[in-house]
Amino acid sequence: MREIFAEIEGDLRAVEEEIGRVLQSPDGMLTDAAIHLLRAGGKRLRPALALLGGRFCDFSLSRVLPLAVALELVHMATLIHDDVVDAAEVRRGIPTLKATRGNRFSTYAGNYLFGRSLGLIAGYRDRRVCRVLAETSMRMCLGELQQICTAFDLSQTVRNYLYRIRCKTALLIAASCDLGAYVCGAPRSVYLALFRYGYRIGMAFQITDDVLDLAAEQRQLGKPIGGDLRQGIITLPVIYALSRTRHPERLRELLLKRDKTPEELEEAIALTRESGGLDYARQMAQRFVARAKAELRRLPDVSARAILYQVAEAVTARRF
Amino acid sequence: MREIFAEIEGDLRAVEEEIGRVLQSPDGMLTDAAIHLLRAGGKRLRPALALLGGRFCDFSLSRVLPLAVALELVHMATLIHDDVVDAAEVRRGIPTLKATRGNRFSTYAGNYLFGRSLGLIAGYRDRRVCRVLAETSMRMCLGELQQICTAFDLSQTVRNYLYRIRCKTALLIAASCDLGAYVCGAPRSVYLALFRYGYRIGMAFQITDDVLDLAAEQRQLGKPIGGDLRQGIITLPVIYALSRTRHPERLRELLLKRDKTPEELEEAIALTRESGGLDYARQMAQRFVARAKAELRRLPDVSARAILYQVAEAVTARRF
Repeated sequence: MREIFAEIEGDLRAVEEEIGRVLQSPDGMLTDAAIHLLRAGGKRLRPALALLGGRFCDFSLSRVLPLAVALELVHMATLIHDDVVDAAEVRRGIPTLKATRGNRFSTYAGNYLFGRSLGLIAGYRDRRVCRVLAETSMRMCLGELQQICTAFDLSQTVRNYLYRIRCKTALLIAASCDLGAYVCGAPRSVYLALFRYGYRIGMAFQITDDVLDLAAEQRQLGKPIGGDLRQGIITLPVIYALSRTRHPERLRELLLKRDKTPEELEEAIALTRESGGLDYARQMAQRFVARAKAELRRLPDVSARAILYQVAEAVTARRF
Repeated sequence: MREIFAEIEGDLRAVEEEIGRVLQSPDGMLTDAAIHLLRAGGKRLRPALALLGGRFCDFSLSRVLPLAVALELVHMATLIHDDVVDAAEVRRGIPTLKATRGNRFSTYAGNYLFGRSLGLIAGYRDRRVCRVLAETSMRMCLGELQQICTAFDLSQTVRNYLYRIRCKTALLIAASCDLGAYVCGAPRSVYLALFRYGYRIGMAFQITDDVLDLAAEQRQLGKPIGGDLRQGIITLPVIYALSRTRHPERLRELLLKRDKTPEELEEAIALTRESGGLDYARQMAQRFVARAKAELRRLPDVSARAILYQVAEAVTARRF
C-alpha cells in the first residue's frame, strides 16, 4: 500500500510526526504506551484517504492535518479496545498493549486517544466535522456491541453481517475520504461521492480481512488464523457455508464449541472452503471494489483519483 | 442532596427523561444496559451543577439540556469503564467467559456513551464547549492511568494525589459549572469563577470519598470498606499516615500485601486513623469547601448562588 501513496509521502510523514507529538501525554504517563503504538505502525490508511480527499478541492496540509491525526487516533483507540475485548496477545506480530499492560490500562489509554482526537476535531469551526466523527464513533461501538452479542449465534444473516462491518469498519473509512475533502471546502457532490467510495472500499476491506482470517498463512498474517472462529465471530464465509455445506450438522457443532482444538478449527475452515464460502466472500468484496471504482468516475479527474483507484484494487489484492 | 436541588427539580426531571431517550440505541442493542444504568440512578450532580451555572445568566433549559445530558453520559461511561476487570482478577477464579463478556460489553458500552456525549456537544456552535469537554475527558483518562500506574506505590506524595483527583474527579465537576454558565452566554469572569468553585468542591468531594472508603459504615456505603487499600490505591489519609505513624514498617508491609485478610485491612485502617490521617484529609476537604464558598462571593447574588453554597456544605457532610 505504501508505494501507492508515494505522491503523498511527504504529507504522510507530517502526519506521522504529528501523531508522535500528540501521543506524548502531558505528564509522560503514556510515553511507553505511545512508543509501543508508534512502533506498531500500520498502514495509516485513514490519514492517507483524508489527504487524498483533500486533493479534490483546495488542498491545504494544515487544514487536513488535525483531521488526519484524529482519524488515526480513533482507529488506534479501537485497536487497543479490540485487544481488551478479544483478549488478544499479539497484533501485527508484536505483543498488544493489553498483553503488556493489562485491561484497565488499555481501556483508559484507548479513551485517552478518543479524547485527544476529539480535542483535535474541536479545532474545526464547522460542526459537521465533529458531528460526522461523533456519529461514526457511536456506530463503531454499536458494531462492536453487535459482534459481542451475536457471538456463537448461528442464526445471523448476511444482512446482519453487512450491518456490523459497515459500523465496525466501513463508516470510519468513508468518513476519512469525505471529511478530508470537506475540510478543504469541497462541494457536497464531491464529498458525498467520496463518502460512498470510502464506504465501499471499507466493506471490501473488512470482508477481505475476514477471508484472510480463515485463508491466510499464519506467518504472513502476523497472528494465528481462525481467530474469529475461536471467538465465535461468525463472518460472511461461514454464514454462506452454513447454508450450503453438505455437512451442516457437523459445521454447526464445530462452530458452537467454545474451546476448539487446532484440528477442529482446521475442519471448520475446510468445510467453509469446500462449501464455497471463501469464494462467495471474495466475490462480494470484488463487487464492492467495482462499485467503489464506479463512484470514482463521477469525480473530477485529479491525480488523487488515480491513487484512490489503486487503493480500491489493493484492498482485495492483499494476502495478509 | 436531592432536597437542595428542589428549585431545579423540574429541569432535572427533563434531564432524566432526555438521558432515558438518549440511552435507547438505534438498534436496541444497549437497551438492557440502559435500563440498568437508569435504574442505578445517581445524584445527577453534574447536570444539576450545569443547570445552576446557567442561572447566572440568561438561563434557557434548551441551551443547557444537551450539555447536562452529555456531562452525565461522560460520568456514566467512566463508571462503566471503572468496572472493567483487570486480566489478573479474571485469573483469580472468575469464570472466564462471563468475565470476558462483561469486559467486552462494558468497554464498548462506555465508548458508546462517550460517542453519544460527543454527538450532543457537536450541536453547540461554539467550539469552547467541545474543547473543554475534550480536554476534561483526556485529563480524566490521565488521572485513571496514573491511579493504575501508582497502585501499591508508597513513594507517592500529597502532590501526586492531588493531581490525580483533580484529573479524575474535579475537572468534570468544574467543567459542569463553567459550561452551564458559558452556554447561557455568561461573561468570562462568571464562568471562570464557577470553574474554580466546581474544581474546589470536586476536590473536596473526592477527598471525602476517599475518607469514607476507610471510615464509613459498610452498611451505609453500600460496598465493603477498604476497597481502595485492597486495590493498592494510596489515598490522602494513607499518604499522611505513612509519614506520621509510629509503626511505619508495619503499615508499609500491610499496604504492600496483594491479598489482604479482613484483619490486615482493619489493622491498616486503624494505623491510618491513629496517625491522624483521616482527620488531616477531612481538614483538607474542609479547606477546599471554604475556598469554594469564597469564590461564590464574587458571583452575582442570584438564587442559584445560595444553592451552590449548600452544595459545597453537603459535599463534606455526607456520611456515605
